[in-house]
Amino acid sequence: MNAAVCFSGGKDSSLAALLLEPFYEVTLVCATAGVADSAAHAREAAETIDFPFERVELEESVVREAAERIVADGFPRNGIQAIHEHALEEVAQLEYDAVADGTRRDDRVPTIPRSFAQSLEDRHGIDYLSPLTGFGRGAVDRLVETRLDVEAGPSEQVPKGDYETEIRAVIAEEHGQEAVSECFPEHTQTRVRGRR
Amino acid sequence: MNAAVCFSGGKDSSLAALLLEPFYEVTLVCATAGVADSAAHAREAAETIDFPFERVELEESVVREAAERIVADGFPRNGIQAIHEHALEEVAQLEYDAVADGTRRDDRVPTIPRSFAQSLEDRHGIDYLSPLTGFGRGAVDRLVETRLDVEAGPSEQVPKGDYETEIRAVIAEEHGQEAVSECFPEHTQTRVRGRR
Repeated sequence: MNAAVCFSGGKDSSLAALLLEPFYEVTLVCATAGVADSAAHAREAAETIDFPFERVELEESVVREAAERIVADGFPRNGIQAIHEHALEEVAQLEYDAVADGTRRDDRVPTIPRSFAQSLEDRHGIDYLSPLTGFGRGAVDRLVETRLDVEAGPSEQVPKGDYETEIRAVIAEEHGQEAVSECFPEHTQTRVRGRR
Repeated sequence: MNAAVCFSGGKDSSLAALLLEPFYEVTLVCATAGVADSAAHAREAAETIDFPFERVELEESVVREAAERIVADGFPRNGIQAIHEHALEEVAQLEYDAVADGTRRDDRVPTIPRSFAQSLEDRHGIDYLSPLTGFGRGAVDRLVETRLDVEAGPSEQVPKGDYETEIRAVIAEEHGQEAVSECFPEHTQTRVRGRR
């Protein structure tokens, strides 16, 4: 069986891939609209942990709509959730037996309710897997610590292949850099640099 | 890091152990009040998949209260949920870094809400892991099929180390065999016979 893991280059999607590796042929898939080089960053990160990599095109309008939503809301939750659901739909259409992501038990966003998971499975004839929802924050951190070499820093300094990178670029372009800081609280990003 | 997987001898707790095996030193732990030889069945099943085994004593009163609850309700959900929560509390007091179980994403019982999981972790200083909550019914069945040799049959004929075996014995003793059939819908049980 093969599985596509939605991959941003960060620690969560990397750890999800490691958890599935003994059971599936794993490919890391970066869903991107091609804004801000995010696919290149994700591909580079994928190479450091030695998985095959695929890039999937998202409509740029989806990223732009998510960006506008975030500016209107003043916080990123709804926009990120919308783009993640859209990405899952796109990846579910590829030729994989399973589609996985790095959502965690204690995540605030994105969250995939069971109803969405089952609907995705039924409509696309695939399995949806979220291996990290079985693990709490502490357990995830400890697994990352023992298995992955990770670089951490503020979002502006850790280039990643995630939606946030693209959305930040769109907001900066449309509304200026200040709007980015207003919508996104400062937080530490991670990017994988290899296995331990 | 070591992990205690609450083990009944069935396919779910066995698969949970396989998922954790690359990341933890796994011990299969059967929590039992010693009714109906269930620990012996669980130990035998644990040997077939080659994990260390430990038995943890539950208060017999807990099993008896669950049995009475089930007879009063006419269905097993609440009694099984109560005994599983009690078992998790007992196993969390042992000397393991993590306590795991085989609850699945699509299970109706037992279900462990995030609030219970976090409370268990905070009070006992352990991680609670439920690796199968990241997998739907289809994915779990396919993983079991490829990784485990499993015997299936009606509950009366597949002796296991689960709570249901003990509760059935108590209800039969207190209320007669007919009460057992009234409370428990007929369903197929599984017991692991080895790895594939």
